[in-house]
Amino acid sequence: MDRNTVTEMIIEAKVRKGITWAQVAEHVGQSKEWTTAACLGQMTLDDAQANAVVTLFGLPAEAALWLKHTPYKGSLPTSVPTDPLIYRFYELISVYGTTFKELIHEEFGDGIMSAIDFKMDLQREPDPKGDRVQIVMSGKFLPYKTY
Amino acid sequence: MDRNTVTEMIIEAKVRKGITWAQVAEHVGQSKEWTTAACLGQMTLDDAQANAVVTLFGLPAEAALWLKHTPYKGSLPTSVPTDPLIYRFYELISVYGTTFKELIHEEFGDGIMSAIDFKMDLQREPDPKGDRVQIVMSGKFLPYKTY
Amino acid sequence: MDRNTVTEMIIEAKVRKGITWAQVAEHVGQSKEWTTAACLGQMTLDDAQANAVVTLFGLPAEAALWLKHTPYKGSLPTSVPTDPLIYRFYELISVYGTTFKELIHEEFGDGIMSAIDFKMDLQREPDPKGDRVQIVMSGKFLPYKTY
Amino acid sequence: MDRNTVTEMIIEAKVRKGITWAQVAEHVGQSKEWTTAACLGQMTLDDAQANAVVTLFGLPAEAALWLKHTPYKGSLPTSVPTDPLIYRFYELISVYGTTFKELIHEEFGDGIMSAIDFKMDLQREPDPKGDRVQIVMSGKFLPYKTY
Amino acid sequence: MDRNTVTEMIIEAKVRKGITWAQVAEHVGQSKEWTTAACLGQMTLDDAQANAVVTLFGLPAEAALWLKHTPYKGSLPTSVPTDPLIYRFYELISVYGTTFKELIHEEFGDGIMSAIDFKMDLQREPDPKGDRVQIVMSGKFLPYKTY
Amino acid sequence: MDRNTVTEMIIEAKVRKGITWAQVAEHVGQSKEWTTAACLGQMTLDDAQANAVVTLFGLPAEAALWLKHTPYKGSLPTSVPTDPLIYRFYELISVYGTTFKELIHEEFGDGIMSAIDFKMDLQREPDPKGDRVQIVMSGKFLPYKTY
Amino acid sequence: MDRNTVTEMIIEAKVRKGITWAQVAEHVGQSKEWTTAACLGQMTLDDAQANAVVTLFGLPAEAALWLKHTPYKGSLPTSVPTDPLIYRFYELISVYGTTFKELIHEEFGDGIMSAIDFKMDLQREPDPKGDRVQIVMSGKFLPYKTY
Amino acid sequence: MDRNTVTEMIIEAKVRKGITWAQVAEHVGQSKEWTTAACLGQMTLDDAQANAVVTLFGLPAEAALWLKHTPYKGSLPTSVPTDPLIYRFYELISVYGTTFKELIHEEFGDGIMSAIDFKMDLQREPDPKGDRVQIVMSGKFLPYKTY
Amino acid sequence: MDRNTVTEMIIEAKVRKGITWAQVAEHVGQSKEWTTAACLGQMTLDDAQANAVVTLFGLPAEAALWLKHTPYKGSLPTSVPTDPLIYRFYELISVYGTTFKELIHEEFGDGIMSAIDFKMDLQREPDPKGDRVQIVMSGKFLPYKTY
Amino acid sequence: MDRNTVTEMIIEAKVRKGITWAQVAEHVGQSKEWTTAACLGQMTLDDAQANAVVTLFGLPAEAALWLKHTPYKGSLPTSVPTDPLIYRFYELISVYGTTFKELIHEEFGDGIMSAIDFKMDLQREPDPKGDRVQIVMSGKFLPYKTY
Repeated sequence: MDRNTVTEMIIEAKVRKGITWAQVAEHVGQSKEWTTAACLGQMTLDDAQANAVVTLFGLPAEAALWLKHTPYKGSLPTSVPTDPLIYRFYELISVYGTTFKELIHEEFGDGIMSAIDFKMDLQREPDPKGDRVQIVMSGKFLPYKTY
Repeated sequence: MDRNTVTEMIIEAKVRKGITWAQVAEHVGQSKEWTTAACLGQMTLDDAQANAVVTLFGLPAEAALWLKHTPYKGSLPTSVPTDPLIYRFYELISVYGTTFKELIHEEFGDGIMSAIDFKMDLQREPDPKGDRVQIVMSGKFLPYKTY
Repeated sequence: MDRNTVTEMIIEAKVRKGITWAQVAEHVGQSKEWTTAACLGQMTLDDAQANAVVTLFGLPAEAALWLKHTPYKGSLPTSVPTDPLIYRFYELISVYGTTFKELIHEEFGDGIMSAIDFKMDLQREPDPKGDRVQIVMSGKFLPYKTY
Repeated sequence: MDRNTVTEMIIEAKVRKGITWAQVAEHVGQSKEWTTAACLGQMTLDDAQANAVVTLFGLPAEAALWLKHTPYKGSLPTSVPTDPLIYRFYELISVYGTTFKELIHEEFGDGIMSAIDFKMDLQREPDPKGDRVQIVMSGKFLPYKTY
Repeated sequence: MDRNTVTEMIIEAKVRKGITWAQVAEHVGQSKEWTTAACLGQMTLDDAQANAVVTLFGLPAEAALWLKHTPYKGSLPTSVPTDPLIYRFYELISVYGTTFKELIHEEFGDGIMSAIDFKMDLQREPDPKGDRVQIVMSGKFLPYKTY
Repeated sequence: MDRNTVTEMIIEAKVRKGITWAQVAEHVGQSKEWTTAACLGQMTLDDAQANAVVTLFGLPAEAALWLKHTPYKGSLPTSVPTDPLIYRFYELISVYGTTFKELIHEEFGDGIMSAIDFKMDLQREPDPKGDRVQIVMSGKFLPYKTY
Repeated sequence: MDRNTVTEMIIEAKVRKGITWAQVAEHVGQSKEWTTAACLGQMTLDDAQANAVVTLFGLPAEAALWLKHTPYKGSLPTSVPTDPLIYRFYELISVYGTTFKELIHEEFGDGIMSAIDFKMDLQREPDPKGDRVQIVMSGKFLPYKTY
Repeated sequence: MDRNTVTEMIIEAKVRKGITWAQVAEHVGQSKEWTTAACLGQMTLDDAQANAVVTLFGLPAEAALWLKHTPYKGSLPTSVPTDPLIYRFYELISVYGTTFKELIHEEFGDGIMSAIDFKMDLQREPDPKGDRVQIVMSGKFLPYKTY
Repeated sequence: MDRNTVTEMIIEAKVRKGITWAQVAEHVGQSKEWTTAACLGQMTLDDAQANAVVTLFGLPAEAALWLKHTPYKGSLPTSVPTDPLIYRFYELISVYGTTFKELIHEEFGDGIMSAIDFKMDLQREPDPKGDRVQIVMSGKFLPYKTY
Repeated sequence: MDRNTVTEMIIEAKVRKGITWAQVAEHVGQSKEWTTAACLGQMTLDDAQANAVVTLFGLPAEAALWLKHTPYKGSLPTSVPTDPLIYRFYELISVYGTTFKELIHEEFGDGIMSAIDFKMDLQREPDPKGDRVQIVMSGKFLPYKTY
């Protein structure tokens, strides 16, 4: 057994049992964004969180050990993603990457938006011309320092 | 002269004159996010917008023609970006890509978030533990249809 | 079991039973283009469609769950396809890509042809000098907007 | 001077003079699809066609020699295109590539659709829900033969 | 079972039984070049040919179905081949590619040599300074046409 | 000046003067295949050959020195060629590579066909169904030896 | 003028004038590690630092503007570095990457060592068996948080 | 069984038994840095070290043979690492690579820091503003010599 | 069973039985360099050699058939090798590649050193400052010829 | 001026003046292997050596500064070399890489052959069946140590 096996077991059980990620998040007691990433092998769970996942999906006990083990992160099979939904985010970076850079530097100076001290909220935004996906990202600004 | 030359002329004039993107946006009459992307060769300007940019930066008249010409988009020199600020966004897709996919499909069904009918707002989020970068993205959901 | 396993089961059953894609499409009640893509793991089926596929090919019941699960899309093993039939389409984009771009922008302005709100029809075009493959593509034009 | 220089001269003159591809096609006496591809360095022009292009854009006489010289084809700077309009076509091949393969083989047997004995027509398809891009492709079927 | 499995079964049986490709070709009733490519998963066999292969190698009956199924072509594991024999052909294209292009265009005009309406003959050419490999290729010239 | 500059000067002069490769070969006194490859920077010329080329194309005297200098070989800009004419040869290796390997080993044992002690002849093969390109390659077989 | 031009001007002036990085650091008033990275286009200088660099190297006044402009970071021409000195660091990551991961997670839990809130000191470590390069790196630990 | 299997067995046993790398290092009698790298398949163990590892993790006896066999080194699945912790080290080389080069050459002349005669120490550095990861690397300087 | 399986069986048996390559070479009756390459799937063995290998390692009889079958050559998993020992050879080509080219052409004219009619001897060269690895390579010079 | 410019000036002067590398080596007072690599931008020259090169080739005085500056090493334009002479060396590593690894480890234990404390001698080896290229490489063995 390794972490990938546990991810596959979770996905299989989720499809078979018809559980939603929102339900998993409620059991785990965290946001649906963090919980989904954690179940898909991108975050590390603590004792209670791991047990909640194991119970909800009916996984073998050993799976909890792997859920508490820090995973090798990176969830995509290719460096340029092929799935159209995920590619659109890659395209946004391709098109807006230098814009992110210019505007963050203009506002904050040299540094980056943290991808670690980071949180995210994904919601449906009702719109008469067709509902929209709204994503709010918030990451701590980390300035480069001289030394 | 081509579109890349115009982008380089804009960047050079901006550095030399000390103009901010917020000031450019005010002259152009659009958000700072769209305006920056447009100046960096990722969006197409209309007559008034192009003239505003040409005047503000003191560009030659021919530059306006290129600003109104739809550019070949994609602002980054490599498929995996090397700049740390831009890389962090790429890392977010690497880590959260499958999470985006799961949650959007759970909420909306099969389809994508549009990267075309899309807007974005980037703000400083004051925080006593260190200010944060807040990015709000909003893209129309486009469902796959059967036929 | 995962979505790839179901695709392999479909291909194997199709070869063994000698079913055509046109027959599958008739059972599913959609076009042969959409139905083939769906069976090959690129589209999501609804309840009735999934059951039709499971029955026709004699798949295990669990397969229906996976056919209704949105797949990770992208059907080719390499970024430049090696199969001559598929490569010819890639070559058309290589040769005509900038032409598509110029003519669509000339007619519609800045924006794209949707690959989501998209349909396609593939027919034999009889011709005394040798029959031809005719493909009619139709995708909604999506304009970039300012904000 | 080489063929790329001539392409750049054509694009520059086109932007400066505000000529449309439809107008170029009329002068050249061919479809707008073929004419655009030819001007962008993907097709070879004959005497009359080359002269028409040189006159219309006001190019130096030597340019006609290069327009009549068969070019090294391939119009895109990267193997996976970054421009969103062109990428959507690449995505269609990624998603529908195996579908093209299955349906053409089902209808015609083993072989390919020619990308040489090929023609294409791109039109606006009016639609109350938003106009559509319609592309009709027609390529001769070429069967593999035994020997 | 899929087409790759059948290829592996053929190679294994060939090594175990000590059959030559010339013998296979004789049973199949085609040239050794076409027959070898077909057995290695690059061509589609008809009923009689598939049965001949199944009988000669002692394959299970289901294998005949796969031999008659058009394969996903491309026989090499990497885009630049590592095997020295195969690499030499790649090197010839690297060194002589522009020469092929110049001479075929000089003789025929713009177009290509078909890789579909194509045949090949590979023979030993006795030579006192060391025997030579002689390969005669013949492909139909396909001209680009205007439209 | 370097070898690439000389190649570009040759191509430019050839287009401007309307000289054919067959004429160059006659002046140089070698086959059109070798002569074209040599002019395109893939072979090394001797004194007489270099002078013939310099005279015919009207190159500066220093160019002869570079034509006699062994070039860095490899005539294509990408590892998978984009030009359709050249790609077809790459496709032949992709499809027939393992066939070349099997048949040469069956006839000669372990070893390769030399790409150095190699010659080639490219001819038009008249055919009522459409003329064909015929290429005859001949390379010395070089066996691996034990030691 | 752009940031790369300034970097090239610095390197050229440094070679011509025989200035050491230690001397530059003294003028700039920061460590030699930060100062070198800044001059090579990886860090942003403030007013006083930029003027010190411009004066020391005798650069044109406009160069100071670019030194104060946040650069597009990444100092290497290829993703796997070819220079042996730099490659050895890449090799250390290849060999010790999973060790870094295991030991930092064991000590700190899930998170990363910051490459932004980071400093470095490079010294000669005298050793009778041959002097050694000693590098002390210190980066803030940034923990992943749940949300 | 091969070396990778042994690495997987070690990782599985470590997770199941809750052993720390510091404990493994103590049993093996070497630093935690070297021991971790060795267990993860990057170093070669001697008799006593291999037996200590086999006993501690409860591996089959044959595993000791593989631990004493020099492994094929390189512990990462892609040339640009996707895991954020490991990527930060890659980013440091991307940003500071030319700085390493300049400063080591300035101090030592032409040559490299050995990645073989190398040792490393990784510690927690307490800091009121947040603890830091401290890594001390020490590699022998190896000068290029003339000959 | 295929050739890779036989290579893995040889490596496993070698580790388990503690046989050296020098011993294998003695049994096979060839140099240790050729013998090792042959066992690792890069050369073709004759009857006697194959039987010697099968007997020494205790392989199943069928393995002899595969050892006599010409393998698909190329022993490394990535185009830039990650293992430090093998990388050093790649680095030598990166650093000295143009030197090899210049000096061989200066001595021999245009042509190559054969990698087929090639032999190699690897020895320990005792040296008081630390023993050295000495490798003597000898390959036939093959001149390009005109035709 | 930078180091690449100096390399190009050397190559141009060498071709124009007809100087051999052996003559350069004599003037520089080092082996022809080291001297050629140094002139091609892979090694660092001292005062006397740089002056010898500048005088012999008639370079501008500033060139000496660059010859004494440690270059960014790596002399090849692509990671898999296209030139047939250089490719053969790459092929040798591809075919014999694992053999190098096995035999050096068998003789010396875990470690590498240095590419820094390294020297090389390239000679013509007369042979009635065709002269051979003989290359003798000698690199210090560097053992991995525990710590």
